[in-house]
Amino acid sequence: MESKEKKGNCLGWAARDPSGILSPYIFDRRQPRTDDVSIKILYCGVCYADVKWTRNKIGDSKYPLVPGHEIAGIVTAVGSDVTTFKAGDHVGVGTYVDSCRDCYYCSERREVYCDKRAISTFNAIDKDGTITKGGYSSHIVVHERYCHKIPDEYPLSSAAPLLCAGITVYTPMKRYNMNQPGKSLGVVGLGGLGHMAVKFGKAFGLNVTVISTSESKRDEALALLGADRFIISNDKDQMASAAKSLDFIIDTASGDHPFDPYLALLKFDGIMVLVGFPSEIKISPFLLNFGSRCIAGSITGGTKDRQEMIEFCAKNKIYPQIEMIPIEYINEALERLIKNDVKYRFVIDIGNTLK
Amino acid sequence: MESKEKKGNCLGWAARDPSGILSPYIFDRRQPRTDDVSIKILYCGVCYADVKWTRNKIGDSKYPLVPGHEIAGIVTAVGSDVTTFKAGDHVGVGTYVDSCRDCYYCSERREVYCDKRAISTFNAIDKDGTITKGGYSSHIVVHERYCHKIPDEYPLSSAAPLLCAGITVYTPMKRYNMNQPGKSLGVVGLGGLGHMAVKFGKAFGLNVTVISTSESKRDEALALLGADRFIISNDKDQMASAAKSLDFIIDTASGDHPFDPYLALLKFDGIMVLVGFPSEIKISPFLLNFGSRCIAGSITGGTKDRQEMIEFCAKNKIYPQIEMIPIEYINEALERLIKNDVKYRFVIDIGNTLK
Repeated sequence: MESKEKKGNCLGWAARDPSGILSPYIFDRRQPRTDDVSIKILYCGVCYADVKWTRNKIGDSKYPLVPGHEIAGIVTAVGSDVTTFKAGDHVGVGTYVDSCRDCYYCSERREVYCDKRAISTFNAIDKDGTITKGGYSSHIVVHERYCHKIPDEYPLSSAAPLLCAGITVYTPMKRYNMNQPGKSLGVVGLGGLGHMAVKFGKAFGLNVTVISTSESKRDEALALLGADRFIISNDKDQMASAAKSLDFIIDTASGDHPFDPYLALLKFDGIMVLVGFPSEIKISPFLLNFGSRCIAGSITGGTKDRQEMIEFCAKNKIYPQIEMIPIEYINEALERLIKNDVKYRFVIDIGNTLK
Repeated sequence: MESKEKKGNCLGWAARDPSGILSPYIFDRRQPRTDDVSIKILYCGVCYADVKWTRNKIGDSKYPLVPGHEIAGIVTAVGSDVTTFKAGDHVGVGTYVDSCRDCYYCSERREVYCDKRAISTFNAIDKDGTITKGGYSSHIVVHERYCHKIPDEYPLSSAAPLLCAGITVYTPMKRYNMNQPGKSLGVVGLGGLGHMAVKFGKAFGLNVTVISTSESKRDEALALLGADRFIISNDKDQMASAAKSLDFIIDTASGDHPFDPYLALLKFDGIMVLVGFPSEIKISPFLLNFGSRCIAGSITGGTKDRQEMIEFCAKNKIYPQIEMIPIEYINEALERLIKNDVKYRFVIDIGNTLK
């Protein structure tokens, strides 16, 4: 498995064009700076963002493109100014690898909202002008601020999906006070994000309802993930009987879908948070106004929330459900991801298969 | 000015059909019960709801229809069980006159969200099966719970618009913590509700921006109402220069209008509250998600908020801008209201002109 395209210090898998087909690719990572952490990547989660950018769905893909922003590995070296990590530490890297570090949002450690935009882990222009390359690769070099300590007892393979899927639902759940035991949460869509919302919801003491298009997910939602109720979204009777029963909804569905049926499930004062990206949101003012309801949006989270979430998962033994795959399987995995055929997150076994 | 249609103890003005044209109408109010307050109406504010229902825009109008739900007057008698009012008290009645008094929302004194629906002040089926009739009339009989004490020093004519226009913006401003001095508020639409939002905003110590379609409102917004900034919503340069500058927006516009241009004015984490009723809300997930923004709806408020608001207005000398009219002018006033040709609330001088 060699690339003749280029020499370099790092082996990854890259898409070369909008076909999105990935294959081995050798490139250069920067030499570590004084505030950098060098990480041997052992696992990388597979996020739908990897499909979007390898296939140029957004229109800004820069090829060759190495995706992957759910990175877990081991520190191999640290720069002389690094204070929080040492060689051998278990570490995670999420959806961005730098930010201005100076604006209001950076000062709050919510760098995802950085005034100058956080620098995404792949396909972004880094401060040195190079294009960032993600976690489908053998190692990565990242400023220590954007690295997260993974407790030794927490499996590194489980940590990977926390860095995007986990934090994307954890942040709005914390922001909108969804951690009040006894309150009720609806989770729309049971994929990588949704299944984590169910797990966090149960850990927060919520009564959790999964709302899905597919009857096939009922048993797993209830038995495996521990949800309290399961509703089929296109069953009008089930939806009607659940009207005004939920305090919160996390909507993880990215495809276009109606919103009013879900808003109607909210109690008055209820909050529905979107973390997916449908093409447009259409809602009825009546459901919003007469119900004193609210619809909010959110994307991933800052480094403060991420570290807190990792520790919360370790303390409460919350682990994503993963399907481990070798890197050679990645093209098939991305096809399956498009069909929602994964329970619930692919994680690439980089350490054992990328060679 | 007599009606030959019916005898009764109360003189009002009613619409007889969807033309919405109002004319004198005599009908019966119930005899006061032990927990009722009898009120001689002196003033009634003119709300856009009066247009909607006199013209059967919603489709449920019950004629003859006596509109009016911004009622201010003087107590003439109280039932034997009434404890909070006595004859001679200044009193206000708002958009509903009863509710179940038993559900969660009633127990919280947010009766507008009553599980069994609050009984609207006009055009609703009352508990005794009669159709409620509003404040374009000489007197009204209301359970004491739904009456509000107006401080003696507060002009009764000014109190009338507080009961709908005022509370409709006050409630969401309190709920979403818009009373933090130094934060910034945008007010979309400068009518009865919008001008109250500006006044409350200034009283709360906010930096207030009025966003209007009409340049003609600039001087009044800044000089008369005390707003800090004025933006024309269809001026792209002005809108662009105000991007990400607001913590909160109160959108009082009822007609169909785009929402994304306003959402773009919100800072990250910003909250936009709709109190108008466009036919549909369409928004971009990108503005919502990438900005961690939120769009919420609200309708009027409960009796707890209303009493608090009245006292807040009295203490802070906040008075709606009103144009006083005789009842004979009401048909012309409703036409002008449709054209937004009022600064900023018509109040009918019931006491001196309904005879």
